[in-house]
Amino acid sequence: MLKPIGKRVIIKKVEAEEKTASGIVLPSQAVEKPQIAEVVSVGAEVTEVKEGDKVVFKKYVGTEIKVDGEELTICEVADILAIMA
Amino acid sequence: MLKPIGKRVIIKKVEAEEKTASGIVLPSQAVEKPQIAEVVSVGAEVTEVKEGDKVVFKKYVGTEIKVDGEELTICEVADILAIMA
Amino acid sequence: MLKPIGKRVIIKKVEAEEKTASGIVLPSQAVEKPQIAEVVSVGAEVTEVKEGDKVVFKKYVGTEIKVDGEELTICEVADILAIMA
Amino acid sequence: MLKPIGKRVIIKKVEAEEKTASGIVLPSQAVEKPQIAEVVSVGAEVTEVKEGDKVVFKKYVGTEIKVDGEELTICEVADILAIMA
Amino acid sequence: MLKPIGKRVIIKKVEAEEKTASGIVLPSQAVEKPQIAEVVSVGAEVTEVKEGDKVVFKKYVGTEIKVDGEELTICEVADILAIMA
Amino acid sequence: MLKPIGKRVIIKKVEAEEKTASGIVLPSQAVEKPQIAEVVSVGAEVTEVKEGDKVVFKKYVGTEIKVDGEELTICEVADILAIMA
Amino acid sequence: MLKPIGKRVIIKKVEAEEKTASGIVLPSQAVEKPQIAEVVSVGAEVTEVKEGDKVVFKKYVGTEIKVDGEELTICEVADILAIMA
Repeated sequence: MLKPIGKRVIIKKVEAEEKTASGIVLPSQAVEKPQIAEVVSVGAEVTEVKEGDKVVFKKYVGTEIKVDGEELTICEVADILAIMA
Repeated sequence: MLKPIGKRVIIKKVEAEEKTASGIVLPSQAVEKPQIAEVVSVGAEVTEVKEGDKVVFKKYVGTEIKVDGEELTICEVADILAIMA
Repeated sequence: MLKPIGKRVIIKKVEAEEKTASGIVLPSQAVEKPQIAEVVSVGAEVTEVKEGDKVVFKKYVGTEIKVDGEELTICEVADILAIMA
Repeated sequence: MLKPIGKRVIIKKVEAEEKTASGIVLPSQAVEKPQIAEVVSVGAEVTEVKEGDKVVFKKYVGTEIKVDGEELTICEVADILAIMA
Repeated sequence: MLKPIGKRVIIKKVEAEEKTASGIVLPSQAVEKPQIAEVVSVGAEVTEVKEGDKVVFKKYVGTEIKVDGEELTICEVADILAIMA
Repeated sequence: MLKPIGKRVIIKKVEAEEKTASGIVLPSQAVEKPQIAEVVSVGAEVTEVKEGDKVVFKKYVGTEIKVDGEELTICEVADILAIMA
Repeated sequence: MLKPIGKRVIIKKVEAEEKTASGIVLPSQAVEKPQIAEVVSVGAEVTEVKEGDKVVFKKYVGTEIKVDGEELTICEVADILAIMA
């Protein structure tokens, strides 16, 4: 298992055009494309999101890493824009 | 529903030339064009504006996202310039 | 009515060469031209100037917006250089 | 009268080669030329200099403004280097 | 022995494609490639990781040094992204 | 007399190759050449050096000014590297 | 004697390939080459290292100065990476 440090979170990206219960679809022409992800793990200083949260985050941030064939992203919690509640 | 994190707000842009009760019309030649929007949702740390406020914000800021076919913008509350009261 | 947020102020520019009671005339060759304005509205955190003050501010700052045909500028109070007392 | 805001001061430049009581003459070949000025007015937060002080300040700083035909400069007190005591 | 100062840590890189108990494999096409390392020594102000921790860190950070033929890296603890727990 | 403001000091440069009691000679090929000076006057917030101190400071810092034919430099105390004790 | 100011230290570089008791040898191909030095003198605010410490520091930092024919470097304590204990 990977435990992010401090204010970092580990997220797993969700397909860009996915239709979720809250009906979010990402615009494909947006200049700064956001992306949807599920929070996998959070650092000890992270209070804004928790494991399992579906979130919108800034694309092209963080560091990608593959664990057991699964592609994950380690980013700052400040890169998370909103929670799908 | 989307809940912005921290000091972020979600706004819905209003047509640029709209005539509102307070009579605001945006100048089309301004170098840094502002834009009018309605606040849809605010983060837990936002005290300056609330849901439903009509606001003037800096154009070209934030991240655009489409929810149920509706185009929204997630931005920092610091990008909001003024409230139409 | 427009209410600026935080440390912002809304000002209305005064003609550059105007002769006021305090006799201020702006130099037309200055590298960084200042400009005179009247304060229209101030944010909740602004204590340095108040509505009605005649002020000298840095040109080329802020965001221009037209309200009922009147051109206004929303800027930071830190862009105000001096008050004409 | 012009009252500078916060930590700003209004100064009136003195001729570069002037010989004062303290005998200061500015070097004409210095890379960053300083300049002598008299303090005309100070902001409410300025404690380092007072009206009437002869000071050395960094050239090319501040905003120039003409009042009743007199050329003045509004600058930050941090741009004042020394007082001629 | 080398003792890093303040918030620095000394780490020893682990081969990029290594399969550990937690099954981490690094993606070889990632733009900002992370890398796995073992913490060798930590500065007095470091509380986030300890000697012996397997960590993911940002590649291309820190200063490389060879001690007794062993290649080590001295970096800031802020360059450590996650701990393999 | 010139009194520097705040954390500034006025220094008088000493010849670069001078042999002092402490035997300091400046290397002529150093990339960032330091220079020796004597402290002439210090601002009210300066506690690190005092009038009369021989100091090593970063070359190419500060503002040069000529007083009674004597070339002086007004710089920040942070530009003083060491005292020759 | 030279006394560094504040958080500065004076160090004397040790030959790059030297074999010390702790067996440190510097890699000659490292992009950002570190270098070994002995601490000669420390400023009043320096607590991390003391006179006589053998340290690893970032190459190309600080200001070089020659004292009695001995080449020394005045740098910030933050440029010291680790102590050879």
